[in-house]
Amino acid sequence: MSIPKTMKAAVLFNFGDLRVTEVPVPSLGVGEALVKVHSVAICGSDPAIIAKGWKGYPKLGEFIPGHEFTGTVVAIAPDVTELKEGDRVAVEPHKGCGRCENCLRGLYTTCLNYGNYKKGHRHYGFSTNGGYADYAACHINTLHKIPDSISFEEGSMLTGAGTVLYGYDRIGWIHPGETVVVSGPGSIGLISAHIAKVLGAGRVILTGTRADRLAVGKKMGVDITLNINEVNVRDEIMELTNGIGADMVVECTGQPAPAAEALEIIRKNGRISYNGIYHEQVTLQLDKIVQWNLLITGPKAEGMLNLERAIPLMADGRINLKPLHTHTFKLDDINKAFDTFTGRVGGAIKVIVQP
Amino acid sequence: MSIPKTMKAAVLFNFGDLRVTEVPVPSLGVGEALVKVHSVAICGSDPAIIAKGWKGYPKLGEFIPGHEFTGTVVAIAPDVTELKEGDRVAVEPHKGCGRCENCLRGLYTTCLNYGNYKKGHRHYGFSTNGGYADYAACHINTLHKIPDSISFEEGSMLTGAGTVLYGYDRIGWIHPGETVVVSGPGSIGLISAHIAKVLGAGRVILTGTRADRLAVGKKMGVDITLNINEVNVRDEIMELTNGIGADMVVECTGQPAPAAEALEIIRKNGRISYNGIYHEQVTLQLDKIVQWNLLITGPKAEGMLNLERAIPLMADGRINLKPLHTHTFKLDDINKAFDTFTGRVGGAIKVIVQP
Amino acid sequence: MSIPKTMKAAVLFNFGDLRVTEVPVPSLGVGEALVKVHSVAICGSDPAIIAKGWKGYPKLGEFIPGHEFTGTVVAIAPDVTELKEGDRVAVEPHKGCGRCENCLRGLYTTCLNYGNYKKGHRHYGFSTNGGYADYAACHINTLHKIPDSISFEEGSMLTGAGTVLYGYDRIGWIHPGETVVVSGPGSIGLISAHIAKVLGAGRVILTGTRADRLAVGKKMGVDITLNINEVNVRDEIMELTNGIGADMVVECTGQPAPAAEALEIIRKNGRISYNGIYHEQVTLQLDKIVQWNLLITGPKAEGMLNLERAIPLMADGRINLKPLHTHTFKLDDINKAFDTFTGRVGGAIKVIVQP
Amino acid sequence: MSIPKTMKAAVLFNFGDLRVTEVPVPSLGVGEALVKVHSVAICGSDPAIIAKGWKGYPKLGEFIPGHEFTGTVVAIAPDVTELKEGDRVAVEPHKGCGRCENCLRGLYTTCLNYGNYKKGHRHYGFSTNGGYADYAACHINTLHKIPDSISFEEGSMLTGAGTVLYGYDRIGWIHPGETVVVSGPGSIGLISAHIAKVLGAGRVILTGTRADRLAVGKKMGVDITLNINEVNVRDEIMELTNGIGADMVVECTGQPAPAAEALEIIRKNGRISYNGIYHEQVTLQLDKIVQWNLLITGPKAEGMLNLERAIPLMADGRINLKPLHTHTFKLDDINKAFDTFTGRVGGAIKVIVQP
Repeated sequence: MSIPKTMKAAVLFNFGDLRVTEVPVPSLGVGEALVKVHSVAICGSDPAIIAKGWKGYPKLGEFIPGHEFTGTVVAIAPDVTELKEGDRVAVEPHKGCGRCENCLRGLYTTCLNYGNYKKGHRHYGFSTNGGYADYAACHINTLHKIPDSISFEEGSMLTGAGTVLYGYDRIGWIHPGETVVVSGPGSIGLISAHIAKVLGAGRVILTGTRADRLAVGKKMGVDITLNINEVNVRDEIMELTNGIGADMVVECTGQPAPAAEALEIIRKNGRISYNGIYHEQVTLQLDKIVQWNLLITGPKAEGMLNLERAIPLMADGRINLKPLHTHTFKLDDINKAFDTFTGRVGGAIKVIVQP
Repeated sequence: MSIPKTMKAAVLFNFGDLRVTEVPVPSLGVGEALVKVHSVAICGSDPAIIAKGWKGYPKLGEFIPGHEFTGTVVAIAPDVTELKEGDRVAVEPHKGCGRCENCLRGLYTTCLNYGNYKKGHRHYGFSTNGGYADYAACHINTLHKIPDSISFEEGSMLTGAGTVLYGYDRIGWIHPGETVVVSGPGSIGLISAHIAKVLGAGRVILTGTRADRLAVGKKMGVDITLNINEVNVRDEIMELTNGIGADMVVECTGQPAPAAEALEIIRKNGRISYNGIYHEQVTLQLDKIVQWNLLITGPKAEGMLNLERAIPLMADGRINLKPLHTHTFKLDDINKAFDTFTGRVGGAIKVIVQP
Repeated sequence: MSIPKTMKAAVLFNFGDLRVTEVPVPSLGVGEALVKVHSVAICGSDPAIIAKGWKGYPKLGEFIPGHEFTGTVVAIAPDVTELKEGDRVAVEPHKGCGRCENCLRGLYTTCLNYGNYKKGHRHYGFSTNGGYADYAACHINTLHKIPDSISFEEGSMLTGAGTVLYGYDRIGWIHPGETVVVSGPGSIGLISAHIAKVLGAGRVILTGTRADRLAVGKKMGVDITLNINEVNVRDEIMELTNGIGADMVVECTGQPAPAAEALEIIRKNGRISYNGIYHEQVTLQLDKIVQWNLLITGPKAEGMLNLERAIPLMADGRINLKPLHTHTFKLDDINKAFDTFTGRVGGAIKVIVQP
Repeated sequence: MSIPKTMKAAVLFNFGDLRVTEVPVPSLGVGEALVKVHSVAICGSDPAIIAKGWKGYPKLGEFIPGHEFTGTVVAIAPDVTELKEGDRVAVEPHKGCGRCENCLRGLYTTCLNYGNYKKGHRHYGFSTNGGYADYAACHINTLHKIPDSISFEEGSMLTGAGTVLYGYDRIGWIHPGETVVVSGPGSIGLISAHIAKVLGAGRVILTGTRADRLAVGKKMGVDITLNINEVNVRDEIMELTNGIGADMVVECTGQPAPAAEALEIIRKNGRISYNGIYHEQVTLQLDKIVQWNLLITGPKAEGMLNLERAIPLMADGRINLKPLHTHTFKLDDINKAFDTFTGRVGGAIKVIVQP
């Protein structure tokens, strides 16, 4: 396949100043493949990265954001045999250095050489260039083949599915039949609720404030929705569980109040997975962790290859994230896409950008 | 509800001599409820128990076998508040003593006081009386409420579902997307294959010799069936997994050859659950456990309350064992029921006896 | 052995009013043994129980507190064969009901029938009578034989050791060679630090404010002590760990500041066990749980028979809690014992009361 | 430091034909360091590799065996910052490819690209050159700094310690106080027994045929030794455990009979780690895995950085493998060293070769 020298890409020239411009097509390093980008989903962290960067990154004037994307392999480095031209792939944003203690134990999303390009770490769209472009150079560790039965659009949401699965992985997976409360019907919350049911939860309860989002949850398999503007969530959950509490709480709002309330609606020996981004400190009844013997974790992105675990389930439709995909924009309209996403214009949930 | 003094029951008068006769309705001890039996499924272990007993049990002339059953609570002991008359229940065969080290750690199916009636151990249909009768006295620890959406017939197969779930529990649950090979399309094999898919396996491969049983597997969610009379299972599985092997093998034949072959079709770091009853010794390539870093377990019955985990999933139809239920007989015809079961007459899989 | 009809016991007549008086020797229920009490250690929770009770308990005028004790079996109920007269025993304070979902899964310290005497739950010295008396009736589930090599005095601290072990059990045990920070040199903190080292921690760092207590830690195997009045604990720990943070933090102060700081001194993928009693809410940087992939638990008492695990290690001196035992009082002087304990008179750590 | 162009090395010219000769000092690739070798311990697998190779490896006439070694860093590749000249290091034999599914999950000792040099896999002394030489080029992933308190000689046995620890890691670590039976007092057996005690086992029982080796076990912390030529091991263990069986069995003989007997001496819900090399098939009572709810694993070498876990414990003497080191030879006498090792001349256990 003939690959051009230059390509269109959305470059961050300054904080808040994202513009589509012409840049060189990236060259390939050892173990890398060139991906012709098809679909990039806007992530909740993207607007913040564009507004003010991410822990010392990125290099303004060069940085291309975007980290939830799919496309087609169009070239491979000489050492690559795992993939070939024409393969359809979903891209995992994290590549660990492969040489720190965490990477060697499989914990590459918490690589101790985060952001150290020379040591081999990559975090597409965060510390290194990402997917809002015609092409992206990606390491094979981050490329996962997807079958034709997964559209590029839905495939761009595999990153979210992988993160949710990693949360369940770390907390010891869903125990069949249990009652799972998910707080927050944002995209991670909706995926968490959907997948809990897919993996065997007995009953999934979704809490939130927005009736339309709760309704999306219902379509995605949620058994019971509770609007916190209408009912006392704690009382309802206690009643629904005979006063015992939920077996698992998956907190996805990122807000202090529900984060603290998780400990009020959980059962003795229950499990809590914090899946949100918590900008503020949280004040909670820590004593409950001890007295009620709780187990608490949170997933750092789609670790331990959990993105890959989602593929067969999305391929046969058990994981179905299509209801989340509400809008599609061309790369040239990326700023409009962001406005739609951040303003939740027209009920926007996942907004996809296509070069 | 008025309860008679005597009832009909199938009593084992001598090994091989099972007869329906009139016996006293059992009285209730502390923590017990009287269950009016509705449906009892014949288990693969029943014919052996009737033919030659079980580890020193039972008392001939008194013993009532049958351990996979459902019914309705018709009376409760004075201390029981957990259940009430009219509750529909599935019965778990094992009740631990509650005072040995294993029971205190939740491992009641391997109670160290097995068969010690005075210490409180019960194993209905094995070391104590079971369900082939109008009534059975059961401890509340062994009674699990079932909703109306579960028929008594299907509910009698919850014991099988619970055992399969305990196997998955002990091996670390199904990892989403993984390839699971189940060998042996008997009822435990079919349930194992069905539930693997229900809990998120990517691909379930069922192996066996009987085309009709493999076809039942297909109806229950199996992706691929391999008839070992027609293909080389090892080669097929290696091809289906790019030479890597299955992520998990669930061995359900109880036969030495497939039990040994499990180690030949598994991947490096794979997991094997032995769910069969192995009457013979098995010769295997043990070195693979070390060199391939395998993890191996097997479930002793429906431990850790796994029967209960299955209930919500059967209630909403995700676990659907109805295809296994092929025949129903009245208690008076119990010997015909056994003949049908053991002879696989008319494609019999699960045969249910109803008082 | 001849057992009197009445005995001396410290009875709580009103909140704050604990007096030694003559009461009937308790009779034995099913599964119980009568223990002639030898040594009772004052626990940090005892003064609070005496001052204001415990979640609706106890019955004033009847209640005998005390839950860390040892003694000798002097009588057994007819059904008991596990123990015999003359056995030296350590008493575990919790007995689960044995019939709720948590008990059946081995989680008896978080029994769902807490305080329900009729259902069989017992919590000596909390919801039912305890050990500050000549005799105590204890269920065999709570009695653990101790060999002669364990003194009754040291044995009374097995409850603390069991709680610490349960914390390590729930967090996935000590990983050999890892760096463990223990905050708070109270008795639970000192036992946590000691046992971390005994079970293979590479390096144990103990933090606190009291130089004398930190010095006790040193005697008990701590490698490094940090006085938070003298150094910046966070900086020191980062320097000691090459900027990575501790592998595990065991928080034992019960105070909000160190509880929050645990998340500042832990490594990516680190583990935190909260072992304190937290009377106040805690405000913390919850986001770190997600971004740093932390695992957090806390032990509810000496669950899963962890008291028993400690016995062989104390028997051969690997677990050595003798340095904690600073004072001994007769039962008649129990109020003086409490004053010594709460006032830390003479450097009091563990104060033992002997009937 | 000045590094020569050539060096002495033991090269395998033909199966069984190992000769010391002059070869080029290896050059460094990305991420590698040059190690001046100090001590190489002969492993039980070495004689077999020399006699007949290892799964298609090595290249005769070029291959340098030896995989348990220590030395000093004398040069580093330009990208290496993790180590510097002068660092004393222990070498881990396995380096995964870093790009297969197993490596990405931290399971690098079972790398799916085993032996694929181009993909980055290394297995020193098996599929690539090892340590019987003046110098060895080693990837930093395989180099672990050791403090001065660990001698190079003892440090060469860290590989064995790491393998034993990985076994305990996979089986869920030692549970404090439990009874561990180790069968086979070879070096892995002795290390297994020693470390079980170091990590908190209550009682360690070592079984074997050789009185002198059992005596070494006693010196290394074993509580009870059973000579299988003198006693019935099964009966003894049942008596020692009140008829319950051992909590854990660590099988280290590699022989079929003890491998099968592991299932006869284990308790219900017990755990078995197979640590041996099993050249023959093993016939066992597989049914026990199911009926007794066993958990079985085996460690593939020193995975998950377990070699590193052993370092702090060896540094302060808790892990003390010095009793295993019986003989030392110069590299020129390597064939004499092998004769001493294989013939167990002079009670040889670990024989160390020094360039």
